[in-house]
Amino acid sequence: MIRGSVRSPPEPWCAGDDAALVSGTVACVDSVTFDRHMPPGMTHYQFGWMATAVSLSDLAAMGARPTGVLAAMLLPRELEADCVVDIVKGMDGCAKACGTFVYGGDTKPGAGSISTTALGLMENRNPMTRSGASPGDFVAVTGTLGGPASGYECLVGGWDVVGDFKDAVRNLYEPIPRVAEGILLSGSGAVTSCVDLSDGLATAANSVSEASGVGILFEEGFLPMSPAVAETSRRSGISEADLMTSFGGEYELMFTFNKKRLGDLHDLGLEFSVIGYVDDREGVRLDSDGKERRLEYGRY
Amino acid sequence: MIRGSVRSPPEPWCAGDDAALVSGTVACVDSVTFDRHMPPGMTHYQFGWMATAVSLSDLAAMGARPTGVLAAMLLPRELEADCVVDIVKGMDGCAKACGTFVYGGDTKPGAGSISTTALGLMENRNPMTRSGASPGDFVAVTGTLGGPASGYECLVGGWDVVGDFKDAVRNLYEPIPRVAEGILLSGSGAVTSCVDLSDGLATAANSVSEASGVGILFEEGFLPMSPAVAETSRRSGISEADLMTSFGGEYELMFTFNKKRLGDLHDLGLEFSVIGYVDDREGVRLDSDGKERRLEYGRY
Repeated sequence: MIRGSVRSPPEPWCAGDDAALVSGTVACVDSVTFDRHMPPGMTHYQFGWMATAVSLSDLAAMGARPTGVLAAMLLPRELEADCVVDIVKGMDGCAKACGTFVYGGDTKPGAGSISTTALGLMENRNPMTRSGASPGDFVAVTGTLGGPASGYECLVGGWDVVGDFKDAVRNLYEPIPRVAEGILLSGSGAVTSCVDLSDGLATAANSVSEASGVGILFEEGFLPMSPAVAETSRRSGISEADLMTSFGGEYELMFTFNKKRLGDLHDLGLEFSVIGYVDDREGVRLDSDGKERRLEYGRY
Repeated sequence: MIRGSVRSPPEPWCAGDDAALVSGTVACVDSVTFDRHMPPGMTHYQFGWMATAVSLSDLAAMGARPTGVLAAMLLPRELEADCVVDIVKGMDGCAKACGTFVYGGDTKPGAGSISTTALGLMENRNPMTRSGASPGDFVAVTGTLGGPASGYECLVGGWDVVGDFKDAVRNLYEPIPRVAEGILLSGSGAVTSCVDLSDGLATAANSVSEASGVGILFEEGFLPMSPAVAETSRRSGISEADLMTSFGGEYELMFTFNKKRLGDLHDLGLEFSVIGYVDDREGVRLDSDGKERRLEYGRY
């Protein structure tokens, strides 16, 4: 929307519409609002954490090393000062988990939103984008899938937040952007595209499929399942595959790479799973025991 | 508010709370909202312009050369697509007037706000801040004062927007941040503090007075009056001094400098007026024909 209506800048875009490489500095901007991103039960600390995670995760997907975060806060006048302090502490907590700092920001009265700008440096690495995947590439994902979806179902269902569900809820509300992983991946030179999963695997894969002009086929049996997923599926009736592909709030990275470079990626000491491959067919598909179905853009 | 609640970053702050120098890149963030910054009669183009001007003006006050702008837009679902395009064109118009580009941004449903992050480089200049003014320094301002206040009174009063009032209204709704002036001023090495006047001269001077721990005395007769001010004062009953000092929406720069460097500043070919001096007394004062009165933080 924005880019279609402005003069084209002298440097190429990076990643999505919400990230840019400007004179060597990577800047990613993203917003959260009280009414859409603060479900009942989320603390102000966690809201501040999320507000910072969304833009740092975009930075992680490019492979930049964060150098700082700035925030624009539009907060209701009636919000208590303690709540604002909790929000800011949450922002700081997420920045700390990513090895960086909140440098400051602007606060004005408003409806309840925070827009953060995460700044970072590529050092000598090339920024990863969504547009470089080629047929024949492998598709991989860091960490495990379905944790945040399980946390969400746990809260909605009023289940006891114990055991694996404790981790799942924490995954949902205090996700740690995969900054270290992004830096390793971009530094490897083996990655052809990368995207974060904050809108879910299905949406992420579709955005790569569209930007790269390729198809993607996932093998269900390869998807690395978070510990709470099986029990969540049993209790909620939602399939394990849906929990792993069609919920947002995951902060893992999905990336594609030339399969000849698999050894180099293993040498990075990174935890990742190969979950499918890039082909020249239409869209994104999931193979479950030989039966293929389309994965459309998810609900987030 | 934000800075009091986070870990201190490794690099010093610059300018106000809403600007930072991070690994050589200056970033300034600011927001506007439909309900507070879009008075009746302002077009969507002008709202987009203002949204970009607010952060570019902060950058100008530091003396950075803009390299790009990113936006976080939270817009009502019912807002027509044409209006969104107009907003973005206004953002582009302001960026162009400042010699830079809108690189992109994030758009989500929301109550109607735009937060922009302006990025820039100091090249080899030192960033100007609010904290370096010393007793004995001269105080100066670029351009003229009271134009936007006159434009505002013209619109509120339903006066014909003709002649000087045409310029005044344009000053109000499509202000041009003093980027070129900021670059010249920071490059001179003569400036001890600088601030933009987007919250008005009185507020700007108070912020420098506070940050630098000094007093400031303005001479009313020295204030460079915009062409529409005299007529606005006559029609509205608001004093010329109030129109020039206590309204926001000015995008000039106020700066202080060692008076021995006055010649160097004149050599820059910059249009500016000396309007007072820094002393070691309390707060900000205006001298009108020998009578002094305090100028408090303005209404903006």
